[in-house]
Amino acid sequence: MKIHGTHYRSIWWDAAADGVRVINQLALPFALDTVLIRSADQAAHAIRTMTVRGAPLIGITAAYGLALALRHDASDPALEQTAHGLLATRPTAVNLRYAIEVALAQLRPLSPAQRATAALEIAAQLADEDVALCHAIGQHGLPLIEAAWANRGTRERVNILTHCNAGWLATVDWGTALAPIYAAHDQGIPVHVWVDETRPRNQGALLTALELGWHGVPHTVVADNAGGHLMQRGDVGLCLVGADRVTTRGDTANKIGTYLKALAAFDNGVGFHVALPSPTIDWRMDDGLREIPIEERSGDEVLTVQGLDAQNTLRSVRVAAPGSPAANPAFDVTPARLVTSFVTERGVLEPHALHTLRRQKTPAQKTHI
Amino acid sequence: MKIHGTHYRSIWWDAAADGVRVINQLALPFALDTVLIRSADQAAHAIRTMTVRGAPLIGITAAYGLALALRHDASDPALEQTAHGLLATRPTAVNLRYAIEVALAQLRPLSPAQRATAALEIAAQLADEDVALCHAIGQHGLPLIEAAWANRGTRERVNILTHCNAGWLATVDWGTALAPIYAAHDQGIPVHVWVDETRPRNQGALLTALELGWHGVPHTVVADNAGGHLMQRGDVGLCLVGADRVTTRGDTANKIGTYLKALAAFDNGVGFHVALPSPTIDWRMDDGLREIPIEERSGDEVLTVQGLDAQNTLRSVRVAAPGSPAANPAFDVTPARLVTSFVTERGVLEPHALHTLRRQKTPAQKTHI
Repeated sequence: MKIHGTHYRSIWWDAAADGVRVINQLALPFALDTVLIRSADQAAHAIRTMTVRGAPLIGITAAYGLALALRHDASDPALEQTAHGLLATRPTAVNLRYAIEVALAQLRPLSPAQRATAALEIAAQLADEDVALCHAIGQHGLPLIEAAWANRGTRERVNILTHCNAGWLATVDWGTALAPIYAAHDQGIPVHVWVDETRPRNQGALLTALELGWHGVPHTVVADNAGGHLMQRGDVGLCLVGADRVTTRGDTANKIGTYLKALAAFDNGVGFHVALPSPTIDWRMDDGLREIPIEERSGDEVLTVQGLDAQNTLRSVRVAAPGSPAANPAFDVTPARLVTSFVTERGVLEPHALHTLRRQKTPAQKTHI
Repeated sequence: MKIHGTHYRSIWWDAAADGVRVINQLALPFALDTVLIRSADQAAHAIRTMTVRGAPLIGITAAYGLALALRHDASDPALEQTAHGLLATRPTAVNLRYAIEVALAQLRPLSPAQRATAALEIAAQLADEDVALCHAIGQHGLPLIEAAWANRGTRERVNILTHCNAGWLATVDWGTALAPIYAAHDQGIPVHVWVDETRPRNQGALLTALELGWHGVPHTVVADNAGGHLMQRGDVGLCLVGADRVTTRGDTANKIGTYLKALAAFDNGVGFHVALPSPTIDWRMDDGLREIPIEERSGDEVLTVQGLDAQNTLRSVRVAAPGSPAANPAFDVTPARLVTSFVTERGVLEPHALHTLRRQKTPAQKTHI
């Protein structure tokens, strides 16, 4: 996608700097800068601190981290230990495991001398694959937006509600939930996006609003509390969100609060669509509520908020009563029964049909370098 | 209720200053100061700026504002015009209309010379009535908490989720939703409150957490997004919220986001209880979604957040992408079908039984000074 006319991915190999470079998402939307990653530790740090975030992007960053580590030690123990360390950075998104497992499957049979070069190729291939998957999600999701537009006789704009950031900043390019929105906008369909603020880290207000603004897509930020009211008033044509892990039956872990929007969509007959590349599906899990591990993050993320003050200085301010503690579960699970459809790189599927993707391998899984 | 051992109401007549004094809720929780109101304009300003907020307290403040105005001009036109101006300050909470109408009904028959004194008595009576109603709500709601506690064999704490601030700061004393919680805590029942942050104005994190802390009630602040997840995990024994306007059939306007919590409670078999004094019921309305006016507030409340920085200075910071607009509906309507019960000063009623209160007058309505 473009920022002020220049094409960007969220992550790319920087040959001159001999490392992988990422957009520093902690500085957005107030500054656009990048961070150079030259080791697995730096990759893990970037994931843990949320310098990079978004299920697909976390996976790609980890794959590059693995490749960087193998330059120094490509022995069997180092390979397994580095993979293990990267897997432990964040628990909920399954794309991390996908990327590491794809890499391990291809690297284990190789001799240590071959591994570093191969790992870098694998990481690049996973990144390219992610771009292709997200682009395909955009194309497959586009008819859903066209249908919602036609549903009102194409006289009015289509209002789409999204939660958190499932845009190109959460992936390598295009995004998952935002990919069909970009595709629709580029086709001239008058889309308007309700952007859930997405407390406590405000990825909606900070990142999704920024992305949409860069691309010229009309949008309005709302408090996470507002979505139900908007749906009751008929002001939401469809909901479109991303996912961090989806089980075989379609239970969907996504940013905390997604479940509440799915309930409201169901209650108001609004379509609730989850956009995801197939690496987000965890074929080892069925019952999402019981099985998906939910990350508990620091309560400080709830108690303090960072923003730009009147002097354009970034500041943290306390937004709760002194002494009161906070809890901060980072994800929730939307049961499959509340999901209208999954928008994947292979088409739009109802939850009961999701399992048909299981027989298909992704390009990266099919590769044998 | 007490603050550091001293008994307070949220509003009181200050004879020495010859005006009505309110706790300045815009300064809480970081400073405890008061504002003196000496005219209807100042009362209207306090309501509009949310120096005072909470449906019952808005009504009492307006009644005092009316009384203050009548000291200067108690003519029929002045009476009607002042009442009209106060009614226009905020549209959703119906207690404002109740207080003004109770006052007008008693003041209109009086001669202008009698009105100022009578109006002050009426305002004081409405304030005392509110204290009595809220205290009764606490007593009637207590068994709900006891039952939820017993439901888990009294071995564990009772977890209660609340949204926004329906505590004593929203009323004159005790509160509505928090009154049963204070009663339960005072009886030795181990209550723990999940305090919804309540974006965009954070009344939960700022005011409810503060109140509960002052009273020693264990509580944890959570993002508004978290409640559904907590209920899915079985970590909520019951929900208890206040109301700004309830229709004859039980449709409930309350702070934006309440509807989402009611949906989650319904989906998880958790009791969803609305605490309210009968002046919150609007007997002229039935269909809440169609009829209750929903206040649209400034988008700036979503785009900027105020809090205390590291130097203990209050600062506003921008928390959204530069240039992105925001929408800010302040209330939503929870359909009666999602409400387990209404906790009123006359007992706990299911929605279908709410109409039985219609035949009863409040003490203030019965009075003829």
